[in-house]
Amino acid sequence: MPDPAPISVPDLHQRVVSVFSRCGLNAQSANAVAHVIVAGERDNCKSHGLYRIEGCLRVLAAGKVMPDAVPELHDAGKAVIEVDAHGGFAPAAFETGVDRLAERAKEIGLAALVIRNCLHFSALWHDVEALAEKGLASLSMCPSYAFVAPAGGSTPLLGTNPLAFGWPRSGTNPYVFDFATSVAARGEIELHRRSGTPIPEGWAVDRDGTPTTDPDAALAGAMLPFGAHKGSAISTMIELLAGAMLGEFMSLEALEFTGGNGLLPHHGALVLALDPATFSARSGRDPVAEGEKLLTAIAGQGARLPSQRRFKARDAAMKNGIQLTSAEMDQLDRFEKDGLAALSE
Amino acid sequence: MPDPAPISVPDLHQRVVSVFSRCGLNAQSANAVAHVIVAGERDNCKSHGLYRIEGCLRVLAAGKVMPDAVPELHDAGKAVIEVDAHGGFAPAAFETGVDRLAERAKEIGLAALVIRNCLHFSALWHDVEALAEKGLASLSMCPSYAFVAPAGGSTPLLGTNPLAFGWPRSGTNPYVFDFATSVAARGEIELHRRSGTPIPEGWAVDRDGTPTTDPDAALAGAMLPFGAHKGSAISTMIELLAGAMLGEFMSLEALEFTGGNGLLPHHGALVLALDPATFSARSGRDPVAEGEKLLTAIAGQGARLPSQRRFKARDAAMKNGIQLTSAEMDQLDRFEKDGLAALSE
Repeated sequence: MPDPAPISVPDLHQRVVSVFSRCGLNAQSANAVAHVIVAGERDNCKSHGLYRIEGCLRVLAAGKVMPDAVPELHDAGKAVIEVDAHGGFAPAAFETGVDRLAERAKEIGLAALVIRNCLHFSALWHDVEALAEKGLASLSMCPSYAFVAPAGGSTPLLGTNPLAFGWPRSGTNPYVFDFATSVAARGEIELHRRSGTPIPEGWAVDRDGTPTTDPDAALAGAMLPFGAHKGSAISTMIELLAGAMLGEFMSLEALEFTGGNGLLPHHGALVLALDPATFSARSGRDPVAEGEKLLTAIAGQGARLPSQRRFKARDAAMKNGIQLTSAEMDQLDRFEKDGLAALSE
Repeated sequence: MPDPAPISVPDLHQRVVSVFSRCGLNAQSANAVAHVIVAGERDNCKSHGLYRIEGCLRVLAAGKVMPDAVPELHDAGKAVIEVDAHGGFAPAAFETGVDRLAERAKEIGLAALVIRNCLHFSALWHDVEALAEKGLASLSMCPSYAFVAPAGGSTPLLGTNPLAFGWPRSGTNPYVFDFATSVAARGEIELHRRSGTPIPEGWAVDRDGTPTTDPDAALAGAMLPFGAHKGSAISTMIELLAGAMLGEFMSLEALEFTGGNGLLPHHGALVLALDPATFSARSGRDPVAEGEKLLTAIAGQGARLPSQRRFKARDAAMKNGIQLTSAEMDQLDRFEKDGLAALSE
């Protein structure tokens, strides 16, 4: 079967909104979820693209997410703005808080957005890019499911805990990184298992804490953090700041809560926004221009800045539309027509 | 020559204050510098202990630091508190700002301390521990000298850019990490050079960007960040947040400023303080008790929490005093008697 014609970004957005509306999400949440999923597909970041729809529908079918939740903003006028997702998906909560976060950061230099009580599947780069567009630097982090052992340990306690950072640039895409603090993504180990190939050394340990290259032993054991004890310390920091500090689940409790049945995790998230204009004011320097000196020098010596592949895919998608496969289009059709009933067993 | 009798922490503090007073530092700066140096020695963290005195004296002798600088606090009532070190050593600037930082963080949940225009040599764990004692989580970071190439690059642009994090614990030492974002410390490569042994693979590249195990080629080339592209991205973030964003030097400018002659770097620093009580209030959970669940589980599976060696050395030093060598005592005597004139050529 030939590939279907490319679909434009706005058209794909409408299709995805339609799927989620059909499955019971209110308009706010359907739109917010579609923003994140279509951005992932647009950037050829397939792990956060249309692939995510089925996972979202499964958590809906399992009754583990509130489809009609309306995120609630709490702002006591401090540096911390909170949004209670009331058990809904994270993206609507982020959209509910992001403008207030940016406003507060510009007003007092630095502010935090706390998202509580959400089903999380968003790409963190989506959040930090939104803040970079407003001229702000930002850090975003959250726990996930406890699949990762601390360095020197043998049993999963840490999530793959992503960390993202965004920095505004003038006239070009922002400096953005977003990575798991595990060596590899769990999905990559799954791919090795399916293809029957060993995983590289250093990715995981088996149940006894012994290093393994067997994907089955790795999935039954524990993944490892990137960067040995340093990455392990950063992952622990993410558990503390985006879990314990907020009074929301850390990765172990998130896993226990859903029973490890492959559904999206329920936890909170933390976003810090910093206003370079406020921080640099006394120096008389232009912080964005200063940053460019470093970023152009990095690119100038042939080292790749993070996210460049995504930005390149985005440019192509905005110009030519997004090329989906027939299978992807068929799945969209089925989900749009039959909603949750279209989920395969 | 037999080792001298152990010296108590307060007595060593007085000796170090005396050295710096003899060399022209005002009382505030001499005390603040001594706090950091004696804490390093006490914790058997020798790289930030008495070893640092000579480096501080050299920068004084070179006229690159203001011995009588009085740090100036700027507080516009926002979330960002600034201290201009006026060209003095960093520790007095930190001490000038830390109480206000903690007060602001407790008041509005989150605050930042910017240190400007300082000669930096402080151990960042010293800063985050001071904030953890006040019940606050914190992050501290600064640039250094551009000795590190970005991942995929060949030429030094990044510093060894340390990152420290502190988290308060109840009834025990805080959770603290503090590490360079380079794979190894520059001093470790120096040690290999002196002993004529190769450095491990992955530490450095030569001038052409080719991986090397030759310490001379490494020192002439570039060190590498920890954790490949992830560590490189974090190091870049530190340049942007603690350099460009503040309008202070990034590591390349810091190196150019002193001419790479081995003197302490001149740059700024950024400390973020977060109040777990504010962040968790709406949850009804105790954030420190929640954090303990993770930290005791990590230690319980035999994985070492960071900083435990330091804390153990500290306990011993507080009980038994600090065991210095005769050479270290002699150097203290010489510096105290002759000040800068005691510097060897």
